[in-house]
Amino acid sequence: MSEKATEVIFTEKVPALKNPILIEGLPGIGYIGRNAVGYLLDELKAVKFAEIHSHHFPFVVLLDPKKNGVITPIKNEFYYVKGKARDIVILIGDAQSITPEGHYQIVDTILDVCVQLGIKEMITLGGFATGVLTEQKPRVFGAGIDQKMMDSFEKIGVVFKNTNIGQIIGASGLLISIGNQKGIKGVCLMGETSGMLLSDPKSTESVLEIITKYLGIKIDMSKLDAKIKEIEKIIEKIESLQTKIAPGASAGGKKKEELGYIG
Amino acid sequence: MSEKATEVIFTEKVPALKNPILIEGLPGIGYIGRNAVGYLLDELKAVKFAEIHSHHFPFVVLLDPKKNGVITPIKNEFYYVKGKARDIVILIGDAQSITPEGHYQIVDTILDVCVQLGIKEMITLGGFATGVLTEQKPRVFGAGIDQKMMDSFEKIGVVFKNTNIGQIIGASGLLISIGNQKGIKGVCLMGETSGMLLSDPKSTESVLEIITKYLGIKIDMSKLDAKIKEIEKIIEKIESLQTKIAPGASAGGKKKEELGYIG
Amino acid sequence: MSEKATEVIFTEKVPALKNPILIEGLPGIGYIGRNAVGYLLDELKAVKFAEIHSHHFPFVVLLDPKKNGVITPIKNEFYYVKGKARDIVILIGDAQSITPEGHYQIVDTILDVCVQLGIKEMITLGGFATGVLTEQKPRVFGAGIDQKMMDSFEKIGVVFKNTNIGQIIGASGLLISIGNQKGIKGVCLMGETSGMLLSDPKSTESVLEIITKYLGIKIDMSKLDAKIKEIEKIIEKIESLQTKIAPGASAGGKKKEELGYIG
Amino acid sequence: MSEKATEVIFTEKVPALKNPILIEGLPGIGYIGRNAVGYLLDELKAVKFAEIHSHHFPFVVLLDPKKNGVITPIKNEFYYVKGKARDIVILIGDAQSITPEGHYQIVDTILDVCVQLGIKEMITLGGFATGVLTEQKPRVFGAGIDQKMMDSFEKIGVVFKNTNIGQIIGASGLLISIGNQKGIKGVCLMGETSGMLLSDPKSTESVLEIITKYLGIKIDMSKLDAKIKEIEKIIEKIESLQTKIAPGASAGGKKKEELGYIG
Repeated sequence: MSEKATEVIFTEKVPALKNPILIEGLPGIGYIGRNAVGYLLDELKAVKFAEIHSHHFPFVVLLDPKKNGVITPIKNEFYYVKGKARDIVILIGDAQSITPEGHYQIVDTILDVCVQLGIKEMITLGGFATGVLTEQKPRVFGAGIDQKMMDSFEKIGVVFKNTNIGQIIGASGLLISIGNQKGIKGVCLMGETSGMLLSDPKSTESVLEIITKYLGIKIDMSKLDAKIKEIEKIIEKIESLQTKIAPGASAGGKKKEELGYIG
Repeated sequence: MSEKATEVIFTEKVPALKNPILIEGLPGIGYIGRNAVGYLLDELKAVKFAEIHSHHFPFVVLLDPKKNGVITPIKNEFYYVKGKARDIVILIGDAQSITPEGHYQIVDTILDVCVQLGIKEMITLGGFATGVLTEQKPRVFGAGIDQKMMDSFEKIGVVFKNTNIGQIIGASGLLISIGNQKGIKGVCLMGETSGMLLSDPKSTESVLEIITKYLGIKIDMSKLDAKIKEIEKIIEKIESLQTKIAPGASAGGKKKEELGYIG
Repeated sequence: MSEKATEVIFTEKVPALKNPILIEGLPGIGYIGRNAVGYLLDELKAVKFAEIHSHHFPFVVLLDPKKNGVITPIKNEFYYVKGKARDIVILIGDAQSITPEGHYQIVDTILDVCVQLGIKEMITLGGFATGVLTEQKPRVFGAGIDQKMMDSFEKIGVVFKNTNIGQIIGASGLLISIGNQKGIKGVCLMGETSGMLLSDPKSTESVLEIITKYLGIKIDMSKLDAKIKEIEKIIEKIESLQTKIAPGASAGGKKKEELGYIG
Repeated sequence: MSEKATEVIFTEKVPALKNPILIEGLPGIGYIGRNAVGYLLDELKAVKFAEIHSHHFPFVVLLDPKKNGVITPIKNEFYYVKGKARDIVILIGDAQSITPEGHYQIVDTILDVCVQLGIKEMITLGGFATGVLTEQKPRVFGAGIDQKMMDSFEKIGVVFKNTNIGQIIGASGLLISIGNQKGIKGVCLMGETSGMLLSDPKSTESVLEIITKYLGIKIDMSKLDAKIKEIEKIIEKIESLQTKIAPGASAGGKKKEELGYIG
């Protein structure tokens, strides 16, 4: 009633940013985007400055497994990092919209923040599931609208040609497309993954290599494996949650079979 | 058209309340929260003062099984109790939202009433299904944000540690999380239940014991079993209703197999 | 964009009405309500004066089977009849809402028209499926809020006691409940039906007998059977349509198996 | 937040149009309408002047298979053609609404543009699936409201009588019905198709023959087969996308089985 359906809450004053670039990593296939930006913001000691809350997020709260019974809301979060050459803004989150129209509304809200911060460039992240388990180093596929920016990423190893990718679902694609209408150019990077894993550290590493190469920064990759293992516990709970919410999106849809369910 | 999608109707003037605490019990697993507050408001002779109506509630009316053909709307109801040490506000209801975004809208409406009444503290109720039928006294699990309030409940027997609870679905969790943003601290209490029972008098009693201990009040528990048996008849109808509504949320979704269905 | 989601279009000026009563018959179990008011408005030569259009109706148009390729929109329609003792307003329609929140919005719109016309009393119609095929004359079950009005209907044969009816889904119930809040008293009449028939002329006749008895009017029932047979053809198309719409509510949800489907 | 749920973006100034007629071809059975207008706008060298964007479209972006990794948004597009006798406005698109209420909102938006351009007449296109594969030349079925316009099309071979068509789902039907309320007369043409083909060049040709005959123009049909083959690749991706979106309309609904899915 008194709230807007989707809103940004600034928790910290943001300093003037130097040529800022947005890196988005929301949940998706193999949690590649989310894990990549999660690792990045830890390594770069990013500072959180805003949260997005939305009526279109799953109607749940999460319990932090590392703390005892502490509730956290479902949200998307903005962080910033002051860099040498340029500053970085990171968007991470627990969930995407669970209603069709919510996707567009949340993306509009994210882009409003970008415009406000003077962001002119962005990298969105995701995974591309091939259906095949391989031992080879996962490739990073790319898509975008700005040919010059796409060329830069192609030079550092991103595969744009003959990818057999027909569409991008959710925020990663919409941000590039609607962002472009608002004068923000962007590239969507998709880590190659089998699609059979809950998370994929190797694919996440491939994506992180491209990002750091593009930004000209270095991060320590040695803790990536361990960190992703840890995060996998949270992902498992979110995944089980989302399959639970999907069929009957109401408290009344609760079934006796859904044990461990709280109402 | 002429109505807001979710609205509060005050049916009674509320007197000034002394340090009021909200106790919420909407339908959920084992109907533990709803039955606990239902018993509490009978025992404490609580006075009803407001109703929440919402377009996001199931699009049905209920027929009171104790009366003959008398229609009652689907609603959430507020009651108050003038206490010795402090006053109590109780929220009880027939249903939660059947649309995803409705959950947030209804919770916002509940919290608007809380702010209006000067409520600074709340207890929300639910059940946690373990999947195991046991003869032991059901435990009460807890979750919250305010550590001091959580500590108080831990001292009187609520289990916050190692609960294996990953998320709370619906109003009980959202109230704590969004309430916290509005300066209302709260704890969510979840009665341990097998998840195989339509209602669970023993788990309901465990929850009521914690509430009365925390509030420093006494209620007669001797009628609990009988009352819950009686309420179970209504629950059965609501449950069957909700599985009916879930698949095809329209009059057109009516199937010939759904006997006893009225259109 | 330029339209409201639900709107009333007056197609005829309504004369001042004398103590008008609303009789509602929208699609439901056995199409009893819809067929009863359809027959009534033919027999009483009712005059159409308004249409309700809504974004919450099925996103289709119908082709009149009696005409060749003539399109009619999905709508609810208001008619009036100038009577001796009192005037009658009839609501008939092709469909109810296909979204959960639309049901409330459409009912609010119907009640706005009622208030505008000075309607203080209404009869809503539906069916109650027993699951049993019998040769006995179908009973008419009732539900309501105003005890005096319920008593009047009980005297002329409506069964209010021990009906085993737990809820009423859709407009028939919501109109009584929300109408009551706006000072319009009403009774919902439900014709007993097996639930296995697409339409039920005998149950429709039982309902019509109660209505005419209550209103103190007489209508010729001899054409009822033939008319309902004719209407059944339209119902079949609407029913098949609604099962088609339910699974994938978009043009993209069209499956090759759904032959005879147009996009 | 800052955007309307459905909006028109004019990309080109439209010159004054002479007695303009709208021809609509959005995705549907056999992609007959979409392919017909797609071919028409190529052959007539139509000029694009506006786009419709909507939160009710699928929450995806498409990757152009002819380009390498280039993202295009889901949209409906308006084109115009300056003709000898009269001017033509063409509406083509990637998708229809994926929410029930979105269909009406998008149709209202299309009609707002029509009113703005002085359009008084329209032809909407679709397919009618018979379930039978035949070698005969596919017929073109018709539906409408304006009897004079329907007569004109009947004279040039459109079948309006005894078609066994009960309803038209989506924009093609709603445009005729709601357009009629705004003073725009129209006819919906539906190409006969088996319903077992992803696209149907022969049925598309039948529909194009009627359109060109009605408009008194000539187009070269020799490239139709080749072009539709080419378009079929894009259709395949859109179709697979739409079955993917239907079950779990959120990023969380992603299943491991849905390979080639990006998030």
